[in-house]
Amino acid sequence: MMDKDSFILPKDFPELRNDTFLRAARGEEIEHIPVWCMRQAGRYLPEFRESRAGKDFFETCRSPEACCELTLQPLRRFPFDAAIIFSDILVVPQAMGMEVQMCPGKGPTFPEPLKEPEDLQRLKTQVDVYSELDYVFKAITLTRHKIEGKVPLIGFTGAPWTLMSYMIEGGGSATHSKAKRWLYRYPEASHKLLSQLTDVIVEYLLGQVKAGAQALQVFESHTGCLGPVEFKEFSLPYLRDIARRVKDKIKESGLDNVPMIVFAKDGHYGLEDLSESAYEVVGLDWTIDPRSARVRTGGKVSLQGNMDPCALYGTKESISEIVRRMLEGFGTKGYIANLGHGLYPDMDPENVGAFVEAVHNHSRQLLKR
Amino acid sequence: MMDKDSFILPKDFPELRNDTFLRAARGEEIEHIPVWCMRQAGRYLPEFRESRAGKDFFETCRSPEACCELTLQPLRRFPFDAAIIFSDILVVPQAMGMEVQMCPGKGPTFPEPLKEPEDLQRLKTQVDVYSELDYVFKAITLTRHKIEGKVPLIGFTGAPWTLMSYMIEGGGSATHSKAKRWLYRYPEASHKLLSQLTDVIVEYLLGQVKAGAQALQVFESHTGCLGPVEFKEFSLPYLRDIARRVKDKIKESGLDNVPMIVFAKDGHYGLEDLSESAYEVVGLDWTIDPRSARVRTGGKVSLQGNMDPCALYGTKESISEIVRRMLEGFGTKGYIANLGHGLYPDMDPENVGAFVEAVHNHSRQLLKR
Repeated sequence: MMDKDSFILPKDFPELRNDTFLRAARGEEIEHIPVWCMRQAGRYLPEFRESRAGKDFFETCRSPEACCELTLQPLRRFPFDAAIIFSDILVVPQAMGMEVQMCPGKGPTFPEPLKEPEDLQRLKTQVDVYSELDYVFKAITLTRHKIEGKVPLIGFTGAPWTLMSYMIEGGGSATHSKAKRWLYRYPEASHKLLSQLTDVIVEYLLGQVKAGAQALQVFESHTGCLGPVEFKEFSLPYLRDIARRVKDKIKESGLDNVPMIVFAKDGHYGLEDLSESAYEVVGLDWTIDPRSARVRTGGKVSLQGNMDPCALYGTKESISEIVRRMLEGFGTKGYIANLGHGLYPDMDPENVGAFVEAVHNHSRQLLKR
Repeated sequence: MMDKDSFILPKDFPELRNDTFLRAARGEEIEHIPVWCMRQAGRYLPEFRESRAGKDFFETCRSPEACCELTLQPLRRFPFDAAIIFSDILVVPQAMGMEVQMCPGKGPTFPEPLKEPEDLQRLKTQVDVYSELDYVFKAITLTRHKIEGKVPLIGFTGAPWTLMSYMIEGGGSATHSKAKRWLYRYPEASHKLLSQLTDVIVEYLLGQVKAGAQALQVFESHTGCLGPVEFKEFSLPYLRDIARRVKDKIKESGLDNVPMIVFAKDGHYGLEDLSESAYEVVGLDWTIDPRSARVRTGGKVSLQGNMDPCALYGTKESISEIVRRMLEGFGTKGYIANLGHGLYPDMDPENVGAFVEAVHNHSRQLLKR
C-alpha cells in the first residue's frame, strides 16, 4: 500500500515528445492525425502472448512491471500516437470486494454475482482506492517513466452501468437481461449501486492522473442493450457526474486538466447528449457514419474512432482505402483515429501496422491541401 | 414430399375474423393497435416447455402437428392480434445441405461451418424448397386451418447476411468476426453465398404464402455488427431483392399480396433505406426512439416494435406506463405493437398478458380522442 500523497505527480517524468494525441483531443492544430487502437496491448501480438503465457490474468494486472511491459510492447512495433495502460475494467468491482476470475475461453467470471438488492450489502461501503488499486497507480507511474516521453499515456475505467451489468450478470452476456431486470424491477437499488460505483470511479481516475495518466477514457461498453430512456436514467447522469467531479478534483489538486474520452459502444442514440457531457472527446463505434457524427455533435467535442476492427482482415490496400474514406468523413480537426472496438486476438500485426501507416500518410496528404 | 401445385392456397381456410394486424401493416384504419410478440411461442410458456420436453429441436420443427400446437399455445392465453408459425431461421441452411444441431445451453451449432470460399462447393446449387422444406409449408397450412380465422398467420425467414453469418460462425457469436472476415477478405465469395441464399429465401417465402401465410417477416438479426457501408453492400441489396421478387412472384401466381416486414435488429443507421425497400412494415429494436423513427421513415412504411423485452421484468404498472409512452410516440396509424426483440425464457407470462392488455387499452383510449 502506498501513501495517498506519494501519488502527487512527480516532476521528473521525461518530457513529452509527441503531443499530437493531446492536441487533437483539445481540437488544436496538428501535423498528422493521431492514432491508437483499443486493446493495442493485446493477444494479437506474439510477444504479448509470450509475456502472459501461463500467468493468471489478474495477477498480471497486479504487477506494475508486467503492465508496463505489456503497455510498451505495441509502441516498439508501431508508431502509435498514444499508449493505454494495460489493466482491466473489472479491477474496480474487485476493489469493492467482489471476486472476479478470468477463465480462459470463457472470459471474466464472478463466482458470486449480485442477484438481488440485498446483495449490495456485500460491497464495501468505503473503498480506499489508494490501497486497493495502488498497483494500477504504480503501473502508470512506472510506465510514464519507461515510455520516455514517446507518446502520452492514457488511463481508463469502466463506466458505472457497464460495471454494474458485469457484477450482476457474473460475466459476459448476450442480452444483459439479469442486469437490465434490476433497472426495471429495482430502479432505486440500481441507482444506489451506480452511485457507489461512480464514487469509486471518480477517486480511481483522479488517482490515475496523480500517478501520471495524461488522458482518461471511460468505457461504457454495454450501452447497446439500453434504450434511449434507460440510457438517460441509468448511464448518462453517471457519465456526466464522473467527468465533472474528476475535472473539479483535478483543479482543486492544482493539477493540469487532462482530456477525457467517453466511449459508449453502440449508444448511437446518445451522441448528442454525450457531446454535451463535459468530455473533450467522444469515441464512436463503426455503426456511426463519420459525417453524420460531425453534424450531430456540432463541433462541441473531438471525435475518436471508428474503423470496423474486422476491416483489418482485409488487404493492406483495402485498409488504406477504408482509412482514407474515414479520414475524409471525420476531417482532420479534432479527430483521433482508432478502431470502433478493440483489436481481436486473431488479427495480423502487419495489418495493424498498415492501419497506423494509412492514418499517418492519408492525414498528411489531407493536411497539405 | 408434396407436389408444388398442392401448395396453391386452398379456398377453404376459415374466414379471418380479426384483420387488425393486416390493416395496420397497410396503414389502414383500426379500432385498436394490434400486438404480437416475437418468440410468443416460446420457452416462457410452461405448456411450451412441456410440449418440447425431451424432444430434439429440429425434430419438432419438422413436425407440422407440433409446430401447429406450439403456434397456437400463446393464442389460448393472450388476445394477440397475430400468430407467427413456430419454426427456425436455420431450416434454410439445412435445406442447402448444412447440418445444424440445437445444443441445449449452447444454441444452434453447425458441426462443419463454412471456413473458406471453397467450402461453398458443399452447398447444394439447386434447392427444391418444396421437397426440402415441405414440413414448414405443411405446418403453415395445418395452422391456418386450426387457427380458425382467429388472427392472421405470419411466415418468416432469416435474411441472407444473418444466415451467412451463422453458416460461417457455426453458431452464436459476440463479434461475428469470422463471418465479417469474409466480407472484407472475400467480397466476391460473400456475394455469391448471399445470392444463393436469396434465391432459396425467395422460393421459401413464396411457398409459405402458397401454403397459407398471410404476412411475412424477414429477420436480419445480425445487422448490428455491420457498419453503414457494409450494410449497404452486403445486406440491404438482398433484403430489397427478396421483397421485390416475392411480390412479383405472388402477383404472377395470381395470389393476393401479403404485407412484408423487415426487422434489421440494431441497424439504426439503415432506417431510411429500409423504409424505401418495398417492405410494408419496418420492425424496430428498442434503441430507436419512436418519434425519431416516424420522422426518419416519413410515413412511407408502417412501423413495428419496439418495447425493450426487459421491461417485462418490471411491474404491471411500469409496463403499462412504458406502453403508453411507446404508443404516444408511434401514434396509432400504421403501427403494430411488439417488443424490440424476442421474449426471453425467464419472463413471466402474466406480464406478457399485461403488455398485450396495455396495448389494447391505451390504444382504444388514444383512438377515442
